[in-house]
Amino acid sequence: MASINILKFPVASPADTSSLGELKRAGYAPSQILAVVGKAEGNGCVNDFSRTLSTVVWEPLIPSDAVTVFSGGTEGVLSPHVTFIVKESRPTGLLAVASHTRILQPWEIGTVEHAKEVEKTVGKMMKDVGVTDRAEVKLVLIKCPLLTSAKIEEVKATGRVPPTADTYESMALSRRACAIGVGAAVGEIEEEALGNAAISTDQWSSVASCSSGAELEDCHILLLASDHEAEAGHLRAISTVMKDAIDAPVILKALREIEEANGQIVQVFAKAEADPRGQIRGNRHTMNTDSDLHSTRHARAAVGGLLAGLTGDTQIYVSGGAEGQGPPGGGSLVVVYRV
Amino acid sequence: MASINILKFPVASPADTSSLGELKRAGYAPSQILAVVGKAEGNGCVNDFSRTLSTVVWEPLIPSDAVTVFSGGTEGVLSPHVTFIVKESRPTGLLAVASHTRILQPWEIGTVEHAKEVEKTVGKMMKDVGVTDRAEVKLVLIKCPLLTSAKIEEVKATGRVPPTADTYESMALSRRACAIGVGAAVGEIEEEALGNAAISTDQWSSVASCSSGAELEDCHILLLASDHEAEAGHLRAISTVMKDAIDAPVILKALREIEEANGQIVQVFAKAEADPRGQIRGNRHTMNTDSDLHSTRHARAAVGGLLAGLTGDTQIYVSGGAEGQGPPGGGSLVVVYRV
Amino acid sequence: MASINILKFPVASPADTSSLGELKRAGYAPSQILAVVGKAEGNGCVNDFSRTLSTVVWEPLIPSDAVTVFSGGTEGVLSPHVTFIVKESRPTGLLAVASHTRILQPWEIGTVEHAKEVEKTVGKMMKDVGVTDRAEVKLVLIKCPLLTSAKIEEVKATGRVPPTADTYESMALSRRACAIGVGAAVGEIEEEALGNAAISTDQWSSVASCSSGAELEDCHILLLASDHEAEAGHLRAISTVMKDAIDAPVILKALREIEEANGQIVQVFAKAEADPRGQIRGNRHTMNTDSDLHSTRHARAAVGGLLAGLTGDTQIYVSGGAEGQGPPGGGSLVVVYRV
Amino acid sequence: MASINILKFPVASPADTSSLGELKRAGYAPSQILAVVGKAEGNGCVNDFSRTLSTVVWEPLIPSDAVTVFSGGTEGVLSPHVTFIVKESRPTGLLAVASHTRILQPWEIGTVEHAKEVEKTVGKMMKDVGVTDRAEVKLVLIKCPLLTSAKIEEVKATGRVPPTADTYESMALSRRACAIGVGAAVGEIEEEALGNAAISTDQWSSVASCSSGAELEDCHILLLASDHEAEAGHLRAISTVMKDAIDAPVILKALREIEEANGQIVQVFAKAEADPRGQIRGNRHTMNTDSDLHSTRHARAAVGGLLAGLTGDTQIYVSGGAEGQGPPGGGSLVVVYRV
Repeated sequence: MASINILKFPVASPADTSSLGELKRAGYAPSQILAVVGKAEGNGCVNDFSRTLSTVVWEPLIPSDAVTVFSGGTEGVLSPHVTFIVKESRPTGLLAVASHTRILQPWEIGTVEHAKEVEKTVGKMMKDVGVTDRAEVKLVLIKCPLLTSAKIEEVKATGRVPPTADTYESMALSRRACAIGVGAAVGEIEEEALGNAAISTDQWSSVASCSSGAELEDCHILLLASDHEAEAGHLRAISTVMKDAIDAPVILKALREIEEANGQIVQVFAKAEADPRGQIRGNRHTMNTDSDLHSTRHARAAVGGLLAGLTGDTQIYVSGGAEGQGPPGGGSLVVVYRV
Repeated sequence: MASINILKFPVASPADTSSLGELKRAGYAPSQILAVVGKAEGNGCVNDFSRTLSTVVWEPLIPSDAVTVFSGGTEGVLSPHVTFIVKESRPTGLLAVASHTRILQPWEIGTVEHAKEVEKTVGKMMKDVGVTDRAEVKLVLIKCPLLTSAKIEEVKATGRVPPTADTYESMALSRRACAIGVGAAVGEIEEEALGNAAISTDQWSSVASCSSGAELEDCHILLLASDHEAEAGHLRAISTVMKDAIDAPVILKALREIEEANGQIVQVFAKAEADPRGQIRGNRHTMNTDSDLHSTRHARAAVGGLLAGLTGDTQIYVSGGAEGQGPPGGGSLVVVYRV
Repeated sequence: MASINILKFPVASPADTSSLGELKRAGYAPSQILAVVGKAEGNGCVNDFSRTLSTVVWEPLIPSDAVTVFSGGTEGVLSPHVTFIVKESRPTGLLAVASHTRILQPWEIGTVEHAKEVEKTVGKMMKDVGVTDRAEVKLVLIKCPLLTSAKIEEVKATGRVPPTADTYESMALSRRACAIGVGAAVGEIEEEALGNAAISTDQWSSVASCSSGAELEDCHILLLASDHEAEAGHLRAISTVMKDAIDAPVILKALREIEEANGQIVQVFAKAEADPRGQIRGNRHTMNTDSDLHSTRHARAAVGGLLAGLTGDTQIYVSGGAEGQGPPGGGSLVVVYRV
Repeated sequence: MASINILKFPVASPADTSSLGELKRAGYAPSQILAVVGKAEGNGCVNDFSRTLSTVVWEPLIPSDAVTVFSGGTEGVLSPHVTFIVKESRPTGLLAVASHTRILQPWEIGTVEHAKEVEKTVGKMMKDVGVTDRAEVKLVLIKCPLLTSAKIEEVKATGRVPPTADTYESMALSRRACAIGVGAAVGEIEEEALGNAAISTDQWSSVASCSSGAELEDCHILLLASDHEAEAGHLRAISTVMKDAIDAPVILKALREIEEANGQIVQVFAKAEADPRGQIRGNRHTMNTDSDLHSTRHARAAVGGLLAGLTGDTQIYVSGGAEGQGPPGGGSLVVVYRV
């Protein structure tokens, strides 16, 4: 548990760690880092080595109990950057805690077992951070593993049936399992949902933001909560949900709330996805039938364009694949601002 | 010259012409069609056969002097559709005329000769439509040819040097030549700009919207102008320019103007591009270094996301590659509305 | 039933039908066409409109009972072309027949029902062509439907569960169902395999070559058989199987057989796929973890390179996705030659 | 100068350095490494971070004067692997030396200045390795820089005109400049070719194998030569040229030569490209008009398929973009074998 500040800096490439110098110039030591959350410029899919590269160069530079969450894909106007969540000695209005689940076995990825592991870890994190009311939880940001061809064969070699034989689809299963786990932990989803053999595809959490990658085998989790004891702090967070990929009104509403508080946006954390039904407000979209370009890349570009246009900022965290992280076709939206 | 109306309908595929039935049900005969302008769902690049397919199925159904303009690419939230520009017997407030340039030889594509041909044709169209003040011209929509590998070899076989050896780049050269021709015709660009050997890369037109394709060898041109004699008409058009790909304020300004007039949007015609300098408002974008996905696809997705979000409509015309059609990184924006 | 000849010609684009003129110059009337089999230059996946375009331009030019089979994807060195199967009045050594299944309902695609429909139709075609020994069947070439987003929703609207929610995966399911149907009809697969609820993924046919597309709703089928009554004919076919994607020995063996007969290759029909286990001969391949490029595109390019190199011909039919059309990672291979 | 051995091992990912253990088990210390040459599994184009990742993880593990050459792209059947060139104390029949040019300024990339720098360095390397006859040089393997959007702007900021504004095209310019430099150094290209302002596009070297990347600013060079004093050694190399991408005969000829010597292939180093004229042996290919997939990816897949088929090995070095490294559409081919 810690009061935290949030700072973000551009990166010249996924291997660029020079922003650590910027962080120091801003008065923070590397030992204060709780999490490095980045948008790396790969395809955000299975073979996105920009994420792995960022992880490889950053992990030696941060405390061993800090977490990295690199989300691939800066399609369209999005700009590659890193966001630091750093511990502050004085109350800021926002609290955070970082943790890991245990390593997930390949056959657990995307299953109820996976969801339960996340629920358990998030539950413990909520206690650690001192959450008294579940509404204080503003964001649970997760990086989770996926299934490569090698892992799928590994599962088969044990005589088990892999959750999917499609490496790209395993990313979606993994994200959804995390989201359901988060939802159960924060009370948005009934515990019973986790008693079943299969992950629910009907339920969702509005504070989950999950992104999968080949660069890890456990789940990296960052939990952000408002500090009920520090109303005087200068940091605030709005947690809301875009009901579809063109939900400008909900964004404009948040921006008005910030404007009325004379606030300034610190960072936006948004999830985006192609509506699985192939339509937006009754009109056909082509994201799910485009075999040249995966739907998560489409969705990041479009939602990134809308959010960047409305905030005037392209260094925002827009992550693709919102299974269980909002209504179908929509996604969770968290805006942190300074007053 | 004709007073016109504008109607749009969804398509189930690039081969779907069932919207002709919708047009008839709305009271228009095929003989009234001046232009079919469509967003087809291909990649919008060199090998986009969705455009050709749409052209092949539509051309037998429309008058021989009508034009087709199919722009490929419905990335992100954009929805495939066709827009009909149809002649009206009574004044509507908007005039239009459609025409063609002569067939361009492969070695002319993207050159000053190409630009001059467009200027000449647009100049004649302005007279035909009865434009008295150049500000009455609201939109000049062009479909223009590109260079395939075969055409590049054809140029070489004549002993000439092709304007480029890169088929994708030829699309940009062709769009720019058209735009410069439009700019010269409507007086936004000095005539001298066309006296030079090379196409200017510093000048631009705010009413040009040019899109290239392998499916034609001449330029298809549609000119839209406000009718200075018909202030009573119910159709209006706002011509403006996005100064970059996240220029939400200029869009919101247009929407306010329409709202104040109690208007309803009929169609949006926008151009989008990746800033060639690799930055947006000082931050790096990755559209020009993404070798998996051409920058025009990125740009359409992002600007399409912003415009669809703000208008609440995904059936809008957003076309990629705005060379000479707005400031670098920006693009022309025309909104037609009904009062 | 008919004795047939096979001719092939290049195409300048998927819309190019000028080869009909070449066919006439070679002495054949359009009324003699039994099938037009083409390699179109799209991505060969869900949104491949080059196939639809070819279908749209060719179908009005051929007899109503002839079939079109356009397979998308000319990756690497492959060259876009069309192959005509035309009726001959005199025995040639090869027989062929073309037919269709009934229209398949979206919920049937890729199911046992689909396989049974193919089995029934192929069984009837074998009778029509006068096959007395199943070994006379050299090739069963099929074009089959897939599931688009719209069709998946259509299935759901009836209360059924679609075979898959992934449009690209529906192509594989459809190909496999066809192949199992062919295998059952020609006796390579036991009839009982079709008594089950699920399509077998362990069995395969060595004469099936199946390719799916959004441009049709039934299955187009062409069956090629050797003529046991016409040993004197000049056309021969070798049916064999590549055991993996680098099985050069089996190709070289066929080429030696042709050379020893003083034969000349007329056309090659090959299926290619990425080994689903992620390995070739013990070494990892990356075709199933490449989120930028679908595995069928990879496989066509690689196998096309090998076959074109060994035959010296790039106008060959190499089709991607060999589910049930050879052992996993391999594919059926049919070489027609003239002696 | 050193006698060398060549060993290769699979990698599980671009971050996998476990093969260093394999190398040790084979009896070699890291200090003996002269070069690590790898096929990484990215797109091989501008934004290929798999190369950078491999470079980042390998460089701390090898001697400071050793070089890394990671070539991206394992399309089709190619298998990700690393090849070690290690120093041997006893003569093996093959000699090698590794070196670097100075850092190239962004405005020099792809220019005559770049070529001259390579020529100078390679000339010095030839002396170092003790080449007495230029025919002893079997392979000059180079990794060279490219222009990113940021570097293009950097060039413009100095008032210079960048060699190209297209980041992907800068890869080709850089490869060609290296190849021309190699050709001049080994006497395949007349020195005068370097006296001109522009790089020759008509000349080529048969021993150059050049690959570009964003992960370096100088050129990494590895030169391999036969040892004229060590006829008794067990390693041999054949340098030849594929005249086009389907040149199976030249491969089969090399394989026969090796078979006759009772040899075993150690490694294959091949360059591949799409014929810039858009044709192979008179038939159209589509590699240069495919806007979804860059031509270098197509070419690697096809040539990789042919070479892997004929050698039975998928762990081979096939690199895309053969500008100046063989005749147009062809590429240099070096086969190292053990007798």
